Amino acid sequence: MITQSERAEAQRSAETFFERAGIVLTPEERARIEVADFGLSDLGRQGLELVTYVNTERVCAKELVLFPRQTCPEHRHPPIDGAPGKEETFRCRWGEVFLFVPGPPAEDPGAHPPVEPAENRYTVFHQIHLRPGDQYTIYPDTPHWFQAGDAGAVVSEFSTRSRDEFDIFTDPDVERATRIAAE
Amino acid sequence: MITQSERAEAQRSAETFFERAGIVLTPEERARIEVADFGLSDLGRQGLELVTYVNTERVCAKELVLFPRQTCPEHRHPPIDGAPGKEETFRCRWGEVFLFVPGPPAEDPGAHPPVEPAENRYTVFHQIHLRPGDQYTIYPDTPHWFQAGDAGAVVSEFSTRSRDEFDIFTDPDVERATRIAAE
Repeated sequence: MITQSERAEAQRSAETFFERAGIVLTPEERARIEVADFGLSDLGRQGLELVTYVNTERVCAKELVLFPRQTCPEHRHPPIDGAPGKEETFRCRWGEVFLFVPGPPAEDPGAHPPVEPAENRYTVFHQIHLRPGDQYTIYPDTPHWFQAGDAGAVVSEFSTRSRDEFDIFTDPDVERATRIAAE
Repeated sequence: MITQSERAEAQRSAETFFERAGIVLTPEERARIEVADFGLSDLGRQGLELVTYVNTERVCAKELVLFPRQTCPEHRHPPIDGAPGKEETFRCRWGEVFLFVPGPPAEDPGAHPPVEPAENRYTVFHQIHLRPGDQYTIYPDTPHWFQAGDAGAVVSEFSTRSRDEFDIFTDPDVERATRIAAE
């Protein structure tokens, strides 16, 4: 849960990251920057700011902001009604991102899970380090999580249709829908 | 047909447009900027420069450059083997683009077909004017063409799988594959 003023502050901060990355949003898009706390009430450490450009039956494109060291919790995109799950490519535009997927764990990772104990919440530790111009494609049903470096990050996401409500998070405390509290 | 040196010059010029738009490419991507003259040997007026970021079975993302007043000729993306044709969203990042689709013709259009007579090459004249942050989605099998304004343009394209070789151009002289001539 976040308050209305926390959301407004996060939106304004996200706007400054988009500006640094040279990404132009329309006034309508700036007004609807989504602030996701994943129900964890810990936005600065576990959260994501995003604008969805397009999300049709077949194609989705989003622009993501991660504040410094902010983490998007581990999750995967399962098949839905017999259709394959979401496939997504992350392309770093500004800052840097540490993306973790299944595979040999990094010996000296650039990021660590934001919570302790992490055991049942973070399970994949193969690191993909993305700097501006770098990208990585995540195929359906693949667990993944990512954290920005010390300066934060702006990341473009190109994907199939996005249906966030079907995402499966490893952390049982996550709720994908952010609740906004009165002050 | 274009010469190797024309291609190299167009690649260098496209790089400067990406830089102006704040878009970071890797050295590998810069080296493979595609220069398309559509077989018309008239690159400055009819052509396109692009980088394909990703093109899987399901998702494609590209970054396009149009030089000042350069036109991508009218074409459509038909169904292939029973699958629906390509769906694509154009998002203007820098400069401006005049995109034309079926519908009531613009009374005072911002761009005109680059060739005369245009009759059998350009058939749709409903104008969509895209400035930075503006976007438009083109559904399958919809004829469309676009031209940059006087400063040129940088445009992101988010789409389903791209199979350019199946595109149907209105102009019978177009060949999608660009041939590179020896000097």
